[in-house]
Amino acid sequence: MPNINGQRVVADLKQLADFGRYKTGVHRPTYSPVDVESRHWLAEKFREAGLDPVIDGVGNVIGRNPSARRHLLVGSHSETQPYGGWLDGALGVIYGLELARAFAADPGCAGLGIEVAAWADEEGHYQSFLGSHSFTDMLSEEQIDRVRGRDDGTPLREALQRAGFAGRPRERADPQRYVGYLEAHIEQGDTLDTSELRIGVVETIVGIWNYRVSVTGEQNHAGTTRMVRRKDAGVAMVRLASRIHDHFPEIAGPRTVWTIGRIVIEPNAPSVIPGHGEMQVQFRDADPQRLALFDRTLHELVADADRAGPCRVAIEAMARSEPRPMDSGFQAQIEAAAERHAPGMHMRLPSAAGHDAAVLSYRMPAGMMFIPSLGGISHHWSEDSKEEDIVLGARVFADAAERILRAA
Amino acid sequence: MPNINGQRVVADLKQLADFGRYKTGVHRPTYSPVDVESRHWLAEKFREAGLDPVIDGVGNVIGRNPSARRHLLVGSHSETQPYGGWLDGALGVIYGLELARAFAADPGCAGLGIEVAAWADEEGHYQSFLGSHSFTDMLSEEQIDRVRGRDDGTPLREALQRAGFAGRPRERADPQRYVGYLEAHIEQGDTLDTSELRIGVVETIVGIWNYRVSVTGEQNHAGTTRMVRRKDAGVAMVRLASRIHDHFPEIAGPRTVWTIGRIVIEPNAPSVIPGHGEMQVQFRDADPQRLALFDRTLHELVADADRAGPCRVAIEAMARSEPRPMDSGFQAQIEAAAERHAPGMHMRLPSAAGHDAAVLSYRMPAGMMFIPSLGGISHHWSEDSKEEDIVLGARVFADAAERILRAA
Repeated sequence: MPNINGQRVVADLKQLADFGRYKTGVHRPTYSPVDVESRHWLAEKFREAGLDPVIDGVGNVIGRNPSARRHLLVGSHSETQPYGGWLDGALGVIYGLELARAFAADPGCAGLGIEVAAWADEEGHYQSFLGSHSFTDMLSEEQIDRVRGRDDGTPLREALQRAGFAGRPRERADPQRYVGYLEAHIEQGDTLDTSELRIGVVETIVGIWNYRVSVTGEQNHAGTTRMVRRKDAGVAMVRLASRIHDHFPEIAGPRTVWTIGRIVIEPNAPSVIPGHGEMQVQFRDADPQRLALFDRTLHELVADADRAGPCRVAIEAMARSEPRPMDSGFQAQIEAAAERHAPGMHMRLPSAAGHDAAVLSYRMPAGMMFIPSLGGISHHWSEDSKEEDIVLGARVFADAAERILRAA
Repeated sequence: MPNINGQRVVADLKQLADFGRYKTGVHRPTYSPVDVESRHWLAEKFREAGLDPVIDGVGNVIGRNPSARRHLLVGSHSETQPYGGWLDGALGVIYGLELARAFAADPGCAGLGIEVAAWADEEGHYQSFLGSHSFTDMLSEEQIDRVRGRDDGTPLREALQRAGFAGRPRERADPQRYVGYLEAHIEQGDTLDTSELRIGVVETIVGIWNYRVSVTGEQNHAGTTRMVRRKDAGVAMVRLASRIHDHFPEIAGPRTVWTIGRIVIEPNAPSVIPGHGEMQVQFRDADPQRLALFDRTLHELVADADRAGPCRVAIEAMARSEPRPMDSGFQAQIEAAAERHAPGMHMRLPSAAGHDAAVLSYRMPAGMMFIPSLGGISHHWSEDSKEEDIVLGARVFADAAERILRAA
């Protein structure tokens, strides 16, 4: 198998982390100056690895292999969450780079082409999975016109202009070209860490269903409005949120998760009865039937709350991703590679986080591999993994990629 | 009794509403340019009424009567809530102005001196009751140093500088000078309106107790963190808020009100488990024992929530005003005046809103009179009262003031 240089992998990860370093993590929002610099740096690294690099119209950095007969697309995203971790996304991109170098250097791998992608904005500073959606024909020009930055409302067009990416062609997937897509990532949860296992073979990327629930009452004076006359949107919202948290455990599977991560009431002043409220409800599961059951239950709870009054309660479905099973052949190859390099130290598990691999799976066979996250910490600058797991992961990943390319 | 000019009262109210007019209401935040202009206009009107006006170091406009033997202080605040009503505060100030003119013009009232106050910032753009607290020695220079605007954080010192009030002396109450303080106000609730009564005699201004409840959990990824491992501050907060709304009705009196007007969770992002939450709980009642019972119950509910885990829940008492009974003699005089001008059309009631009269009552006998609010609407630009009630209120108020001055 191709020879992985573990020290080079770790050194490249550390160099990439210099773009926006924050404490032991990284602050590198999509299209920020450090993100743009890092994408040019990645393109140059891809070139040094013998690939033809291009940065496309949404900032995807793609390294093409000019000579191979079979191609496996390998990558992840390269921006980070705000004050996020140094490995989230970066790990999969640098693994791709290392695989490209290792395969090119190995005469036994002649004709087996690794192509590398550093997707833009998987983390959704503008829109989640923007780069992989663009690559898979799931992003229109009209959507690009409409999207704005989630923090300061900057139009995406303006951000692309400033980044220097506006006007470039957008690269599109040619499914005929690829055997498939392979992505490595930190687990972000603590399943591997607490089980003391070292490699995770992803079976499915969970579906994530999001809703906006809005409550309309009547804003009024918190002193002079008697209790019986009130239509307090805050009361209606906390009661409904409590009922959701009471009911969901009754219908949950072993790995279902649900979150009310956003709650807003208006005018949010201590002496004013809230006239309006809004919350966002999200749930995730790998089982489509479970997701449908949660959807029905949430709609029933909202309808009950609306009927009970005195506030009006409405629900609106927002972003919804379906569970995406990973290619079963790819799973078997990753598992075989893991068993060779870390016998008995691997497991199959679903991914509870969304990943570009779910998007790519609509166009080509896709697979994912996890390495352990220390304490399951994620989306925080203190996220980390053991260096020995980073190096082992690269070996298993290269072995799996070779098996997949040879089997094609 | 002194002769009230109803048309002049309405005309002055309309002219004062020109400073910051918004739809049929007024937007005149404390120390905003229109608020400063309106205070200079009021000072000039006080001068025309034969008073010696002064605008003091916090913007209180006080008109002194240079010749009378007995003095009754009459007034209210002159700034408005954001996009608030045209009568809230303004009514009591213009009544005071009209009384000063009417008493001065009536030879039978020689020696009975009406002095008028337009207090600053009762509405709390910087700090609730700032002007009346300053006048009654309940505001230190250190507090003035610390206070900032509630919306944009402007230091109070800077706002006073810009308004042109910095460096002026602050006027202080001389209790020996006054028979007492009398304030007229719109009811802000719907008790008079729904009872089809025209004058309210305030018995007590309710106590208002405020608390900040904070919840500390653990911020984490909304996908990869399993439910059993979560410490979701949002869940803990909505459950506690629901329990508060369940328990308070069991211990409430007929006029107790409670409000959770402010709820904030952090980081308030759809895919992040909230790590921290905060809410403000407020309750109001005229009965000190009822307030103490609410206080104990709230502390017990918070302690229960903290014990239940997995989040830590803490409570901190914030601003607390005690119920303030109005002077019983003043109540009798207002009632007698109401019975003369609107026989059978008046009632005694508590004030569920705070007023400067509660602050003044710590230094001198104080009384309050209400006129009806249409539909009980308050703190909104659509607040209004019938013109005939405005005019009748001025007559009753003047009669009550004369009775109080003569009885002294």
